[in-house]
Amino acid sequence: MKQSINELCINIGKEAKAAARCLSTLSTEAKNRCLLRVADLILKRQDDIKRENEKDLKNAEEKGLSSAFIDRLTLSQKVINSMVDGLREVAALSDPVGEVPRMWKRPNGLQVGRIRIPLGVICMIYESRPNVTIDAAALCLKAGNAVILRGGSDAIHSNLALASIFHEALRESEIPESSVQVVPITDREAVNELLRLEEYIDLVIPRGGEGLIRFVAENSRIPVLKHYKGVCHVFVDKYADLKRAWDICFNSKVQRPGVCNAMEGMIVHENIAKEFLPEMAKRFKDAGVEMRGCKKTLSILKDITPAKDSDWGEEFLDLILAVKTVGSMDEAMDYIACYGSNHTEAIVTENYERAMRFLKEADASLVLINASTRFNDGGQLGLGAEIGISTSKLHAYGPMGLEELTTTKFIAFGNGQIRG
Amino acid sequence: MKQSINELCINIGKEAKAAARCLSTLSTEAKNRCLLRVADLILKRQDDIKRENEKDLKNAEEKGLSSAFIDRLTLSQKVINSMVDGLREVAALSDPVGEVPRMWKRPNGLQVGRIRIPLGVICMIYESRPNVTIDAAALCLKAGNAVILRGGSDAIHSNLALASIFHEALRESEIPESSVQVVPITDREAVNELLRLEEYIDLVIPRGGEGLIRFVAENSRIPVLKHYKGVCHVFVDKYADLKRAWDICFNSKVQRPGVCNAMEGMIVHENIAKEFLPEMAKRFKDAGVEMRGCKKTLSILKDITPAKDSDWGEEFLDLILAVKTVGSMDEAMDYIACYGSNHTEAIVTENYERAMRFLKEADASLVLINASTRFNDGGQLGLGAEIGISTSKLHAYGPMGLEELTTTKFIAFGNGQIRG
Repeated sequence: MKQSINELCINIGKEAKAAARCLSTLSTEAKNRCLLRVADLILKRQDDIKRENEKDLKNAEEKGLSSAFIDRLTLSQKVINSMVDGLREVAALSDPVGEVPRMWKRPNGLQVGRIRIPLGVICMIYESRPNVTIDAAALCLKAGNAVILRGGSDAIHSNLALASIFHEALRESEIPESSVQVVPITDREAVNELLRLEEYIDLVIPRGGEGLIRFVAENSRIPVLKHYKGVCHVFVDKYADLKRAWDICFNSKVQRPGVCNAMEGMIVHENIAKEFLPEMAKRFKDAGVEMRGCKKTLSILKDITPAKDSDWGEEFLDLILAVKTVGSMDEAMDYIACYGSNHTEAIVTENYERAMRFLKEADASLVLINASTRFNDGGQLGLGAEIGISTSKLHAYGPMGLEELTTTKFIAFGNGQIRG
Repeated sequence: MKQSINELCINIGKEAKAAARCLSTLSTEAKNRCLLRVADLILKRQDDIKRENEKDLKNAEEKGLSSAFIDRLTLSQKVINSMVDGLREVAALSDPVGEVPRMWKRPNGLQVGRIRIPLGVICMIYESRPNVTIDAAALCLKAGNAVILRGGSDAIHSNLALASIFHEALRESEIPESSVQVVPITDREAVNELLRLEEYIDLVIPRGGEGLIRFVAENSRIPVLKHYKGVCHVFVDKYADLKRAWDICFNSKVQRPGVCNAMEGMIVHENIAKEFLPEMAKRFKDAGVEMRGCKKTLSILKDITPAKDSDWGEEFLDLILAVKTVGSMDEAMDYIACYGSNHTEAIVTENYERAMRFLKEADASLVLINASTRFNDGGQLGLGAEIGISTSKLHAYGPMGLEELTTTKFIAFGNGQIRG
């Protein structure tokens, strides 16, 4: 059995690599036609999709999985429509492959530049959301990559149903079916096997809980783009416009508390704390936010919870907020360096020097001045659809759109140059 | 003992991370001043350096290490001068940190862009050449990174002597000394420990033989930029200008056969083989190149060696050349896809369509039209000094200059934007 999982994975890798060679030179028009066809077929076959999804849902219920889990697993009409919209959106994005931003001439006359090319084969390892199957396949295909999809075992029927629709569109478009492969083995061993296929796979992207991501990062021989967690802060400087600060902090915390770009810690300069905190606390209280404060904060807001040590740097993903009042900007920067997660950091200030200092020193994939942390998102930043947010610095740092699923190679146009 | 290696490595990692925070905001002027000071000190202290190098050379001789090894280990006057020149050259390069190539405006008025920032902490793992200590430290410092240097145990006295000179310049420039650290432990276990410090190190760059690189790639939890080998080809198309083809192939093979961007395989279209090969063979023979041919090649060049299967895709690093005569461009492209190493591929042709096809399809970090493979080098391509050539696609593909030792983060200038 183990032998056969190994063989099957190697075979998937080989087929993906062969498909990638073909995809790398595919026209934009062919890729877009296929994506739009997948969208049409999903709408046409939505009853079949829902039937297969029902099987997964039934199994999940029998296993007694949580309602949050079942919610993520469900291909509701809304989720189906969003997959269709996503496909059409990706088709409308401009194709990064073949871009040559700049060429330069060497003294010997050689014209040198960089051309954007696909990465090759990408392996996505994710958990219960079956819509990731379509979202990831669409972005990978548009960027000219073959993709190997290893979703959660509890979503296997849904994932295979979606893959079969993708295959139909690929066939009609005369693109190799193995451009998009769902791993049909639900055995966890398959993940281990995939992570060793450095000969065939160029990049692994895990999506899911921190446990999954750490497992992949620690066991992969293939480069991994990862997003551990989002512990985002807003620093309300002593030169903050208070109206803006209230709105930005409120939006960062409350607009969607369960996501990675929500604010988890608010840092307040003591010089404006007395003016800023009471009104902020009132708005948070009305919205059901539990504030957990440091000693200085508690001296102003008597009735909030004292923060435990473990609250600093915690990713609550909930209506809970750690509040730290600091005596200086240095202290704020030290706090962020210590507790930030390289995701998103924002400052509210009207002071130019301090805004520029924050921009330079805060080590995060997005640093904002006078705006909500909630903007760290491929769509919001203008990249189009994204496949995740990288909080490690190699290759991509921040939202990963189409461009982050490509690389560049050097090209040189000569007329007989040799090296002396 | 094992415990103490672990502790020592963690300490090196922590110190490097603290230094990196300081380096990330250092002025270009301060970095350049330090680099120029290192150059001056190397000249001033060259007798001390040579004395420490002598200790390593004596040990190496006593161990009976090869003369090639001892050659790489020797800090001759020429090598010392080249380190000094390298430092001055890096000081003269423009600073990539802080570059914002482009900003764009979102419909809500948010100004968004990407700013170039250092990677953080880079760990170099290399073998016997002590000059790598200075070359790597200079590039890392200029790009705003802290660097941990783990050279070969046989070069430890030389490396520590060079590090002490770097430290003197750092102190004088008021930059933390731990910006450049040479690991003082020659025990191999130290490498294993370093490769697990993902909390402190952002990137590992191994330089040396394939064994070292594979070891690092397979054991590192930290992203690795690697260069396995260079199996470079020149495809002499049926539409080649023969004069150019002779010169380019000769230069690619003979100008410096022991390096990664030398040609190891020559692919010849059969339509011009009869005209091209005899004169080419004559020039190669005069230069002492041993040609190993396929059957078709042997039917034209009767007196060369028949190629063994293992000659295809072999990195000879010597005056040996595999020669394959092909019936079509498809066959040439298949050959390259099968035996190339993603390093450098060149075509000689006067045909526009075929030149463009080659450019698109050849999967290598540099693809050349009508020029020698020997141009795959940071200096030759106009990037300035390089720290190696990446043949894997993530983050960097091709020569790694200063820019490849940095990354970008997103920045956003707002005036109160919140997400609706």
